[in-house]
Amino acid sequence: MNRNATGCNKQIMNKKENHSAKSEIEQAFLRLMTQKSYMDITVTDIVQEANVARVSFYRNFASISEVLDSIADATAEKLNIEFLPLLDTSDERKLREYLFNYFYQISLNYKEMWAIRGLNMDLFTKRLGEKIHEKRKAVESADSDISEKYGWVVKLCVLDGVSRRWIMDEMKETPEEIIDYVMPIIKTL
Amino acid sequence: MNRNATGCNKQIMNKKENHSAKSEIEQAFLRLMTQKSYMDITVTDIVQEANVARVSFYRNFASISEVLDSIADATAEKLNIEFLPLLDTSDERKLREYLFNYFYQISLNYKEMWAIRGLNMDLFTKRLGEKIHEKRKAVESADSDISEKYGWVVKLCVLDGVSRRWIMDEMKETPEEIIDYVMPIIKTL
Repeated sequence: MNRNATGCNKQIMNKKENHSAKSEIEQAFLRLMTQKSYMDITVTDIVQEANVARVSFYRNFASISEVLDSIADATAEKLNIEFLPLLDTSDERKLREYLFNYFYQISLNYKEMWAIRGLNMDLFTKRLGEKIHEKRKAVESADSDISEKYGWVVKLCVLDGVSRRWIMDEMKETPEEIIDYVMPIIKTL
Repeated sequence: MNRNATGCNKQIMNKKENHSAKSEIEQAFLRLMTQKSYMDITVTDIVQEANVARVSFYRNFASISEVLDSIADATAEKLNIEFLPLLDTSDERKLREYLFNYFYQISLNYKEMWAIRGLNMDLFTKRLGEKIHEKRKAVESADSDISEKYGWVVKLCVLDGVSRRWIMDEMKETPEEIIDYVMPIIKTL
């Protein structure tokens, strides 16, 4: 019994360790993406940056591409569950809160997350786009009408386009000004 | 005099040859972009594909990056002069005609121009975005209001987003159906 309990604890602990290693690896990968081109990132870079054993990497991922995949998948899931329903809500306060968070985060992290060296950002956006597409296809019925099918695309693209230009032009507006501009657009779409 | 005339003709002919070599090189580069990753394209590949002398390449461009730059620049100029004013027009027939051309071209060329291998498409879109941004900054006054500054971004992003999803979902709608969907959106923006 004692032995069983220990074995069980060990299993739980392994799972926990593994989960935390997975997340450490993903965070390390994201940090590396701000420093060098995706093509140049090696497994050695990642395990050093994450401070985990090499075996931990291969326990969680078959390749670096899978790390990117996993992050894009989680981001798409979050967008799908949290963000897209909000874009359709009539709860203006909640939408505003969420948009504030979105633009505020960008203003804090854009140097790291947006001005990422070379093509990394586009690579991530591309993978994310594919993931969102997959997830939406799964929930859409065959007879979804065109506005059901394209409405969320249009809204996300508006947000994405406005943030890109905002960043490119060195964020001259405050997040609040940007939100005041996009809120009515999102609502008419 | 005769000699002068010949010299002059020669100069004109050289200019013409040069112009046509430039355009051959750009076309060849675009074809190569559909076949291999940007990183793997060499000057040798380009001059072979374009069937021009190596010296012709270096007479026109300092590097491959400049070829991409030149194409993005011309595309941005075209968008800026032809397309963006149309998006603001009240001439619905003209806008519809232009949109038809836009979506119809996509439906004809998407395998080549959109499903480009790897990151090439995103690379091109990124460069194009920077070029459009530069050109717009040059014409915007310092006190442009926010809708002047972001309105065209929003419209272009809507078109871009809808076309991307249309392609990803194997273009189930006709160009006309897509236009009927995006026209009212563009007009309310």
